[in-house]
Amino acid sequence: MTEARRRRIEEVLRRRQPDLTVLLENVHKPHNLSAILRSCDAVGVLEAHAVNPTGGVPTFNETSGGSHKWVYLRVHSDIQTAIGHLRELGFRIYATALWEDAQDFREVDYTGPTALLLGAEKWGVSEEALALADGAIQVPMFGMVQSLNVSVAAAVILFEAQRQRLKAGLYEKPRLDPELYQKVLEDWLRK
Amino acid sequence: MTEARRRRIEEVLRRRQPDLTVLLENVHKPHNLSAILRSCDAVGVLEAHAVNPTGGVPTFNETSGGSHKWVYLRVHSDIQTAIGHLRELGFRIYATALWEDAQDFREVDYTGPTALLLGAEKWGVSEEALALADGAIQVPMFGMVQSLNVSVAAAVILFEAQRQRLKAGLYEKPRLDPELYQKVLEDWLRK
Repeated sequence: MTEARRRRIEEVLRRRQPDLTVLLENVHKPHNLSAILRSCDAVGVLEAHAVNPTGGVPTFNETSGGSHKWVYLRVHSDIQTAIGHLRELGFRIYATALWEDAQDFREVDYTGPTALLLGAEKWGVSEEALALADGAIQVPMFGMVQSLNVSVAAAVILFEAQRQRLKAGLYEKPRLDPELYQKVLEDWLRK
Repeated sequence: MTEARRRRIEEVLRRRQPDLTVLLENVHKPHNLSAILRSCDAVGVLEAHAVNPTGGVPTFNETSGGSHKWVYLRVHSDIQTAIGHLRELGFRIYATALWEDAQDFREVDYTGPTALLLGAEKWGVSEEALALADGAIQVPMFGMVQSLNVSVAAAVILFEAQRQRLKAGLYEKPRLDPELYQKVLEDWLRK
């Protein structure tokens, strides 16, 4: 471990946003999961969440650029458990949706504790998940194809959250409490 | 061809942005190319551009959601030809770059004729392409991994362009001249 690497790790950790996350419902394809975790890393997500009722350990590919090392992924057994866990931590859960009466994603405030719920590859969340979410958001689309790739939808919304959080100064000082910061730092230094 | 489908096609065509495009330099992977064309469709790109000096016809997969039918893709033999073509049409060409002194992508005006130059899978454009571009832009990243997936980078910038163009009213009336509009309409109605 060089001093430069330690500094880099601390610099990244000081910008981690413990109150911004994604909840992935049945996102199976390694290149989508990997691209989403890479976007999570870039905007400062500390821990992402996934539900995969078909079982199996999530797999990544080279699309992740190694980001799955730096974004924790917590796998829940089902969507109720996942949403219950997030709600207990104080998160508001926004489901990405395709219908036009869902709220425009740019009108939502992402500076509070926010979880983005993203559905399977066709960017649809289950009805069950939708009923449990706090709100539904959509990305304006003007094309013939009426949905986005799931990793694209995740990125577009995550970077809007980044824009708002930059403006609100949320990347300027550590957001993790000292105990958690120390615990994560020790874990990262071992990687 | 039902009347509803014809109306849908015309609705999409009225929002196409002939002065917004991407230039893809050596983006080979079908799922990346497909995801980029799907984002292009969603923000109204009429025609995308690609350079693939290794030869071969670009291939798409199910990630495109069929969008490669609705976004023309012009393949150029080399990067000079591609950039020369775009410049002749009045485009400003912005290369996506990784270094921190590149301009923040949110500070650039995308309401004028704009081409986003995106490099190979690791999101690097060649030095040659960079030297020919009008400017270099970067997406702020706060993670351990220092680049984004190319289709994610494309989407994040394209949706910033969409945001600006929505605000400028550029989706409110047809942007294609009547002759081109008619030509594209006839082609799309045959699909």
